[in-house]
Amino acid sequence: MVALIKSVAAMKTFSDALRKKGRTIGLVPTMGYLHEGHLSLVKEAKKRNDAVIVSIFVNPAQFGPKEDLKKYPRDLKKDMKLLSKLNISAVFFPSVSEIYPEGFSTYIEVEGLSDKLCGASRPGHFRGVATVVAKLLNIVKPDTAYFGEKDFQQLVILKRMVRDLNMDVKIIPMPIIREIDGLAMSSRNSYLNREERQKAPALNKALEFAKMLASEGVKDAKTIKSAIAKLINTEKGIRIDYVSICDLETLEEKNTVNGNTLIAIAAYIGKTRLIDNTVIK
Amino acid sequence: MVALIKSVAAMKTFSDALRKKGRTIGLVPTMGYLHEGHLSLVKEAKKRNDAVIVSIFVNPAQFGPKEDLKKYPRDLKKDMKLLSKLNISAVFFPSVSEIYPEGFSTYIEVEGLSDKLCGASRPGHFRGVATVVAKLLNIVKPDTAYFGEKDFQQLVILKRMVRDLNMDVKIIPMPIIREIDGLAMSSRNSYLNREERQKAPALNKALEFAKMLASEGVKDAKTIKSAIAKLINTEKGIRIDYVSICDLETLEEKNTVNGNTLIAIAAYIGKTRLIDNTVIK
Repeated sequence: MVALIKSVAAMKTFSDALRKKGRTIGLVPTMGYLHEGHLSLVKEAKKRNDAVIVSIFVNPAQFGPKEDLKKYPRDLKKDMKLLSKLNISAVFFPSVSEIYPEGFSTYIEVEGLSDKLCGASRPGHFRGVATVVAKLLNIVKPDTAYFGEKDFQQLVILKRMVRDLNMDVKIIPMPIIREIDGLAMSSRNSYLNREERQKAPALNKALEFAKMLASEGVKDAKTIKSAIAKLINTEKGIRIDYVSICDLETLEEKNTVNGNTLIAIAAYIGKTRLIDNTVIK
Repeated sequence: MVALIKSVAAMKTFSDALRKKGRTIGLVPTMGYLHEGHLSLVKEAKKRNDAVIVSIFVNPAQFGPKEDLKKYPRDLKKDMKLLSKLNISAVFFPSVSEIYPEGFSTYIEVEGLSDKLCGASRPGHFRGVATVVAKLLNIVKPDTAYFGEKDFQQLVILKRMVRDLNMDVKIIPMPIIREIDGLAMSSRNSYLNREERQKAPALNKALEFAKMLASEGVKDAKTIKSAIAKLINTEKGIRIDYVSICDLETLEEKNTVNGNTLIAIAAYIGKTRLIDNTVIK
């Protein structure tokens, strides 16, 4: 059995008690509807810590007014079942009013990094992410917190926030987990119908192709971007939101693929917005 | 002797060591050039804690481009002398690059509260205050932190920030300390020439007059505001920035003085901007 904790006060008490016993704590913040990607974070957290806490909170502050907050998939029962097998200490499952009480008005903005890539298409998204993650870190006070590289920009922003605000936690990035056909695991994959699902690996295929081009000596970012776009556009029903070739830390666009490079894609398949990326060291 | 700590890493180590020994820590964040107001905070912190840390940092992020960052008064030697008498544990005196390293880009905004009163005249000021105080709280991790009621809006904003971000610290407000003639103590009083200094108690006198009016049953905010303005304007060389009669927690302007009311003034005496306030419970 995994403890299910719903109040901030109880979560703080629980976590403080663990810390007083000298236990190290790993936090895995999620929005639930867990897949193998999330579970890989939990497993790594287990390896590195005495206690692991998984938070499940679909964070309204990181959804735009026209985005999928309402229909975002939720299945606490299934999530608890999956987590109960992994021997974690607790699931933190707060309500929206527990996290954003009456009069809530404090937000954290990581400037510069937050308006690029996904931030350009989703204004306010990373402000919501940074704010809720800061809150979770302050409530749980873990030694380490785990995030997947699928949301690469989120990782870069959270690392910067933790450094800038002198927060006492280490952010641990974990590699993307993929389906057999290469599609990056995501709770939003559940939105795809059968036809869309068949098209979805195109993102990963385009990234693999870009990687191959780079390893063959094609270093011009423009050339690689247009190759990616061409490849994705052969699939009807996929609409590219952006293709970015940028620096791993600053997320500034690069003209040349010369190491420390992120290639990131966001695209709509039908109404579903998916993201994927690869790193060229 | 008081330990003088200049690096964030050393401050963290020092503070962590105290905490591991089970000592409670009180933090008094200041911009230095200490006066009796600051010292009253330190004395209260001493009463309530095993260890007291005073930070001295003139925070560039809370000064506007045309404000007095450069000429803000500084006297570390005198400050250390004053503090050495109070038996505190350490002074944290970081450089600007220690607090805002290369690439710093994370800011905390307490919306709504930050654009009123002083925030209207000093855009970005409270963003700078909230950000640096969050950093200091994360570095020192005190049990309590002490702030004077002279900067009443700052107090309201910091309390909200601590609540909203679930920070593990209690903000302790302390009453305004005044000169014999009623002038609220402030490091910026040192800017005043003799003539200006003689006029400066007008702010406090106007507040006392307003309080008297309210206690006599005059509850209309407009009437009280114009009485304050009239009184201050009899002194030539004082220019009112704002007179506010507002709610103690939301800082929303009120039409009626009916308890939980803050009366706050900002005014220029020559080129020096001074603030003062009083609370009507």
